[in-house]
Amino acid sequence: MAASAGPEIERLIALLSKLPGLGPRSGRRAALALLKKRDTLLAPLTAAMVDAQAKVRTCTVCGSLDTTEPCAVCSDETRDGRLICVVEEVGSLWAMERGGQFKGRYHVLGGLLSALDGIGPEALRIAELLARVTRGEVAEVILALPATVDGQTTAHYLADRLAVASNVSVTMLARGVPVGGDLDWLDDGTIAQALRARRPA
Amino acid sequence: MAASAGPEIERLIALLSKLPGLGPRSGRRAALALLKKRDTLLAPLTAAMVDAQAKVRTCTVCGSLDTTEPCAVCSDETRDGRLICVVEEVGSLWAMERGGQFKGRYHVLGGLLSALDGIGPEALRIAELLARVTRGEVAEVILALPATVDGQTTAHYLADRLAVASNVSVTMLARGVPVGGDLDWLDDGTIAQALRARRPA
Repeated sequence: MAASAGPEIERLIALLSKLPGLGPRSGRRAALALLKKRDTLLAPLTAAMVDAQAKVRTCTVCGSLDTTEPCAVCSDETRDGRLICVVEEVGSLWAMERGGQFKGRYHVLGGLLSALDGIGPEALRIAELLARVTRGEVAEVILALPATVDGQTTAHYLADRLAVASNVSVTMLARGVPVGGDLDWLDDGTIAQALRARRPA
Repeated sequence: MAASAGPEIERLIALLSKLPGLGPRSGRRAALALLKKRDTLLAPLTAAMVDAQAKVRTCTVCGSLDTTEPCAVCSDETRDGRLICVVEEVGSLWAMERGGQFKGRYHVLGGLLSALDGIGPEALRIAELLARVTRGEVAEVILALPATVDGQTTAHYLADRLAVASNVSVTMLARGVPVGGDLDWLDDGTIAQALRARRPA
């Protein structure tokens, strides 16, 4: 890839290129930036990675990542345990938390059902979700899954399973025009859904 | 940035966001990918970074990065020591090496002259270049600097200094239409230069 750079640099570039958002070219740029900024970037990033590897673990309750067990959200007594928001990944959980509106708890599935990729219900944390729900405290499960085919398939599957296993109410995030969204830039499906779900002004 | 993720994760995200090509959002995605792929990505990348930090150093002859001193190019006896290719950064050196055509040696400036950023000649490895050239063996210095204002300012400055200090011939990379380049996509300057430097077909 980068002839005349030693195998150590080649390996660093190859591994950096595997990060999402980076490819071979940006992997090289990242490696150069690290090697140029040894004290301000390479050393602290290495330390942060060693630290994360040692301390960060998956919460056994909700499947989120944190350094405490259970995670900060699951052990926060001020949060409403009657509400569980089901998300695909930890990244979606962080996005919900940035919104700052939701004060319940989470359940991270760890993926979506996908016939194409051969991901069935047993590969996701669905049994853990049903166990949490049937334990009693939960009143509502909010399915905050992506508006994609796999996301909606998973949402329907979960709604069915939850209806059989318990009598919690199951809801989904509203579909509609995003804040700041120009109608001209929206796809037809979103406009159709926003029209169907119209409400008094 | 990502509420409810521990400070260890926050720090990891903050540092990853500083890599070129990554921002806050892609930094979060990179952190998640690292934490999900502990054994296949986080652990080997950490090891590669520790390794690079310990072993990679700047070649005292040419300014390139390598694990040997002098670097692999400078210590390669089959390379033509009469040719020195001057580049801005190690990344440009790697790009030249990927081309596979150049069989001389390199000199990495470590930047470009920039009045705006206050980068003067003493901040670059120019004295080292003049010393290498006046030592005698060198016959030609090829300035492979970017076709930007700073790149061309630096090239003219180096040409002047080299003319005073020695009698090596100083050349520059040709300007013209890049391979695969559609005229319609090229800027006017490139077309003008390619026309001025036209040659018999």
